[in-house]
Amino acid sequence: MTVGSTFGSLFRVSTWGESHGEGIGVVVDGCPPRLPLTDQHLQTDLDRRRPGQSSITTQRSEPDHAEILSGVFEGVTTGSPIAVLVRNSDARPGAYEHLRDVYRPSHADYTYEARFGVRDWRGGGRASARETIGRVAAGAVARQLLQQAAGIEVLAWVSQVHTVFSDVDSDSVTLAEVEADQTRCPDPDAAAAMTFAIDAARRDGNSLGGIVTCVARNVPPGLGDPVFDRLEADLAKGMLSLPASKGFDIGSGFEAVTMTGLEHNDPFTPGELGPVTTSNRSGGVQGGISNGADLLFRVAFKPTATIASPQETVDTSNRRATLEARGRHDPCVLPRAVPLVESMALLTLADHWLRYRAIDVLPA
Amino acid sequence: MTVGSTFGSLFRVSTWGESHGEGIGVVVDGCPPRLPLTDQHLQTDLDRRRPGQSSITTQRSEPDHAEILSGVFEGVTTGSPIAVLVRNSDARPGAYEHLRDVYRPSHADYTYEARFGVRDWRGGGRASARETIGRVAAGAVARQLLQQAAGIEVLAWVSQVHTVFSDVDSDSVTLAEVEADQTRCPDPDAAAAMTFAIDAARRDGNSLGGIVTCVARNVPPGLGDPVFDRLEADLAKGMLSLPASKGFDIGSGFEAVTMTGLEHNDPFTPGELGPVTTSNRSGGVQGGISNGADLLFRVAFKPTATIASPQETVDTSNRRATLEARGRHDPCVLPRAVPLVESMALLTLADHWLRYRAIDVLPA
Amino acid sequence: MTVGSTFGSLFRVSTWGESHGEGIGVVVDGCPPRLPLTDQHLQTDLDRRRPGQSSITTQRSEPDHAEILSGVFEGVTTGSPIAVLVRNSDARPGAYEHLRDVYRPSHADYTYEARFGVRDWRGGGRASARETIGRVAAGAVARQLLQQAAGIEVLAWVSQVHTVFSDVDSDSVTLAEVEADQTRCPDPDAAAAMTFAIDAARRDGNSLGGIVTCVARNVPPGLGDPVFDRLEADLAKGMLSLPASKGFDIGSGFEAVTMTGLEHNDPFTPGELGPVTTSNRSGGVQGGISNGADLLFRVAFKPTATIASPQETVDTSNRRATLEARGRHDPCVLPRAVPLVESMALLTLADHWLRYRAIDVLPA
Amino acid sequence: MTVGSTFGSLFRVSTWGESHGEGIGVVVDGCPPRLPLTDQHLQTDLDRRRPGQSSITTQRSEPDHAEILSGVFEGVTTGSPIAVLVRNSDARPGAYEHLRDVYRPSHADYTYEARFGVRDWRGGGRASARETIGRVAAGAVARQLLQQAAGIEVLAWVSQVHTVFSDVDSDSVTLAEVEADQTRCPDPDAAAAMTFAIDAARRDGNSLGGIVTCVARNVPPGLGDPVFDRLEADLAKGMLSLPASKGFDIGSGFEAVTMTGLEHNDPFTPGELGPVTTSNRSGGVQGGISNGADLLFRVAFKPTATIASPQETVDTSNRRATLEARGRHDPCVLPRAVPLVESMALLTLADHWLRYRAIDVLPA
Repeated sequence: MTVGSTFGSLFRVSTWGESHGEGIGVVVDGCPPRLPLTDQHLQTDLDRRRPGQSSITTQRSEPDHAEILSGVFEGVTTGSPIAVLVRNSDARPGAYEHLRDVYRPSHADYTYEARFGVRDWRGGGRASARETIGRVAAGAVARQLLQQAAGIEVLAWVSQVHTVFSDVDSDSVTLAEVEADQTRCPDPDAAAAMTFAIDAARRDGNSLGGIVTCVARNVPPGLGDPVFDRLEADLAKGMLSLPASKGFDIGSGFEAVTMTGLEHNDPFTPGELGPVTTSNRSGGVQGGISNGADLLFRVAFKPTATIASPQETVDTSNRRATLEARGRHDPCVLPRAVPLVESMALLTLADHWLRYRAIDVLPA
Repeated sequence: MTVGSTFGSLFRVSTWGESHGEGIGVVVDGCPPRLPLTDQHLQTDLDRRRPGQSSITTQRSEPDHAEILSGVFEGVTTGSPIAVLVRNSDARPGAYEHLRDVYRPSHADYTYEARFGVRDWRGGGRASARETIGRVAAGAVARQLLQQAAGIEVLAWVSQVHTVFSDVDSDSVTLAEVEADQTRCPDPDAAAAMTFAIDAARRDGNSLGGIVTCVARNVPPGLGDPVFDRLEADLAKGMLSLPASKGFDIGSGFEAVTMTGLEHNDPFTPGELGPVTTSNRSGGVQGGISNGADLLFRVAFKPTATIASPQETVDTSNRRATLEARGRHDPCVLPRAVPLVESMALLTLADHWLRYRAIDVLPA
Repeated sequence: MTVGSTFGSLFRVSTWGESHGEGIGVVVDGCPPRLPLTDQHLQTDLDRRRPGQSSITTQRSEPDHAEILSGVFEGVTTGSPIAVLVRNSDARPGAYEHLRDVYRPSHADYTYEARFGVRDWRGGGRASARETIGRVAAGAVARQLLQQAAGIEVLAWVSQVHTVFSDVDSDSVTLAEVEADQTRCPDPDAAAAMTFAIDAARRDGNSLGGIVTCVARNVPPGLGDPVFDRLEADLAKGMLSLPASKGFDIGSGFEAVTMTGLEHNDPFTPGELGPVTTSNRSGGVQGGISNGADLLFRVAFKPTATIASPQETVDTSNRRATLEARGRHDPCVLPRAVPLVESMALLTLADHWLRYRAIDVLPA
Repeated sequence: MTVGSTFGSLFRVSTWGESHGEGIGVVVDGCPPRLPLTDQHLQTDLDRRRPGQSSITTQRSEPDHAEILSGVFEGVTTGSPIAVLVRNSDARPGAYEHLRDVYRPSHADYTYEARFGVRDWRGGGRASARETIGRVAAGAVARQLLQQAAGIEVLAWVSQVHTVFSDVDSDSVTLAEVEADQTRCPDPDAAAAMTFAIDAARRDGNSLGGIVTCVARNVPPGLGDPVFDRLEADLAKGMLSLPASKGFDIGSGFEAVTMTGLEHNDPFTPGELGPVTTSNRSGGVQGGISNGADLLFRVAFKPTATIASPQETVDTSNRRATLEARGRHDPCVLPRAVPLVESMALLTLADHWLRYRAIDVLPA
């Protein structure tokens, strides 16, 4: 379809809205009925991606209050579409007037023009990271479903910023550890170094990239629909659909390249409920289907395209121009990318968990 | 859907078939009418993925002859579904009898059992790489469409095997250069080293991973449908849907992590038809939409899971077992992965090119 | 999908909302960019389906003001999803308390309970005809697209109420003639008789069924995608998705049954731009594709299930109960069904018109 | 999508093939694993739609032998796509040479040309009723699923041919009674009159229309996904996607028009497992969802467009022409339409039954 704002098949999410329009929203269709759900489930996750949380993120101030408009009655989902609305309140379109006629480098300005022949230039319009509010709200619904129905848990953290690496045990890391620092890096030493690096980049009018690592726990064996809708394929799609993401790998990932089969294969051993692997280079998927081990994958993010230094570019008449950035932006998207990565993982897993259940209708 | 064997929305491809069943096939629905197409268009690409081509690939001998059964009349497509059938001929299911009761490590045996509660154990069944015949056949149709209608060209090659790197100019490399060596690495020195490494791995009963790099040229600006169906998101999905793939990145990819915004942004300069970038760290996409530069991305493949060395595993009764591999397999999938990567790129681009055209119905 | 609130593929519409929740809304994804669109385009059609318009419709008083929240910038569509919100204002859930524990005959109360295991009993919840607000709003967008891009016009009217038939020339009837009477029957004599019949039914605590006939003009030959997505198949689906509809036929329809092939076939004759038919028993479609003649079809509606007479039923504990209807309802849905039929026809045609254009990418 | 050869979402069916091409086929994706299935399950239904069965149907002689190519292993489905191939054997394209340059009235010749700009003129190509082989084969898989997993039964019969009505008790009629006569009308007196009428029409070079009535028994309450994917909406789409169909109604259908609400509503009474209706004017659906009563609906078919009498038409150069029909055709499609109606009902119900099960994942 030319229709690109929908994700998922059984747990189907459609987002809408622009940075400086009336608001941002999402419709979740396919959420099973009888799931306890309130505005507060959404707000918890929305607050994690909200701007203005710390010194190292954008200062745009938005309450980002989520209102559930439909699909919930007397505290539980009804099986009807769940519509969520977040009104924009700190929209300052005037602050973007200078972007009306110029294409920001490595932004979506020019490509949206090429795609649509028209462009909402106010703060990036649809291409703004504000769009991800809808994903996070829907992800919170998915989180509640996965938790209540299957005990599945998704947790992400910042594992690298620029050249600052962290040392995190993906088996044991907790949400509290992730949220303990504004960087969302649960390794305190690395977190301190990241904060220092991000602050320095901002002072320099520059920006930094990094990596978010994500784990999903208690995923039962059997999620994923080969040959095209492999679990890792849909995760990859979800992650590469996030603004500023440039890469995805799972398990051994790009490191698999320099391994041999003898080193790489995950031996099976008898577990209580069936085979388990004694290593997890597969990252929890084999042949496109979860194998019961933790899902473990990484997402690479580029340095924020918006920087406070002057840049060479062209205007909408294809003439040379110089861009001086204004507006309110993050020098490093990584801390706020954490809930985004989680939301796409949650949406993917909710969809595949429903698909996993859906065909189990005949006796074994 | 629980339905995972379909890829694409406007150019929609559905594959079917198992390694040792009656055959492998694909249905392409949505191919525009009036495209010149013959069996030979398909055969050219199928011959590139065919086993038994060289000393470093599996010795299974299959002619893999493609027969177009529908959708083509008097040499052109009619707009009706194009069905393609490739009969299996060298199927030797007996050779896999020993796999009936054991799960091969890092294969899909156990996970298919977990997903479906039943498993075609003959040569991997649906999880066999033979399934990709359907992708390659459909990719050949997409190649013909993209070439005839838009002049778009897709070319992939092996850029790394294990620790052997290559030096290839993605701007100028040609199909002839890629096909000149059995490794499909167009850097002759690297190709020689790769052959040596693959031969050594086979002699050791081992296997090697590697990277395929892919370029798409003459892609017009404007392909991609944010927010979820970004061009790179659909490419990522396509690539991670390939057997043995573990990672994907585009443009700067994982290297973006250690760059700053000042280093990473691609400056615009006036081009003949509009803005062009003077560098391509974006990899041809910005905001999920092509920007007119070449698409450039990488796919990481793990070392082949089938190795000729004994491995610890469990049987279908969850008891310890030792697996001694038999059957005919590649010690390194990379050379044959090249047409697979191309096929998924071609399918993604054909779909997005049709989507790109589909909404351009109102005056500018 | 279990996801049933989406209609269309290229012009994709998703509705949400319940009768007595926060509001009703719709998201239109896939509307081509650069289409002039304002709230007023929507309001015109919404006002036609609004309750309280005349003495023969429900007295619920709702302004049904539509607000476009996204996807429109500086007066034109941007290609991003168009979200529309209509707040509920005259919701009186208390008026439905007596329906909490009882199933109304020939309503959706029991079946929603069977489907979802939970039920929003306030005024029918999702099953209320208020849901159609989203369809009408989206239909107004489709109307604007079809008019601007293709000159296609859709017009429906009430052709029968109970035993009152009308005599209307589908070739020449106009919107003004339809809107001239509160019944939306453009035959004044029949309209008067219908009003009389409806008034009588209301006084009797009873209700009446009827037929809406619809014509689409200026539809070019070539719309429809066999074999399953025939134009008439998608129209039939759209019409049977309307509350209270029980049947659909096109062209000769059920009358074709008693005709012979010699009587029924539509002869071709040379027209200015190609073949035209000299009769239209086909109803504008042949083999599932429009042939350039007017589309002409009928939709049968049952008498409103809500009646003011006591009825035997059961309660939610499966015990006998007697229902005395309250609430505000139409004794005959036909007048207000007219814009609903139009909206589903518009949505179907907008989708197929985009599909018609989408594959025309190769030289003839 | 421009892609019209797929039906269903969870139980997804894609047909391909033309009347005089290599063959006809279908791919069923989404059939749950572990369903016993053999070629014979398909053949039983295919034999019912096969031409040449009796004196009143076409004399084209095709064995229509179905071969399952994938998705079945050791007698049960594996969860992978089920591909079915039926080779064409009695194709006589030469017999259609005279149709290369002329458009048959009320056929799809002209409209396919308008849609695709190219046309496989051999026997109607894709528009031939031979395409329905794929539907019937897939319908047989659905029949086996519905029977094994849910005990649901679908049965259709010819209830009217031209002006010959039948008297059939939809509650009790059996397959044996339907198959007892070549007309597939289980009322022997009516069957005799129908045979007489069809024979007379053939002798006159004419053709007749009629009605197929269909019942589905043991459908549990809860199937159907409002607001668009109502059960009757998807049934209507399926039926109107059949060649030569012109109308659909369910339950009271078009007769509801002349009823009042008091006459039409189906009272509930306590049943053993929950509420049941004491009448069935709803036809088994309320609010788009099955209510546990039998589904009961009708499909109107026009008289066969191919007649042996000369007809006025135009040629492909838009000049007047006279058509003299040749080829082998049915003077009345009704007897062979019975398995087609059943197949679309089976496909619709299999899809909705899976959807019904798919969301039932949380405690009541």
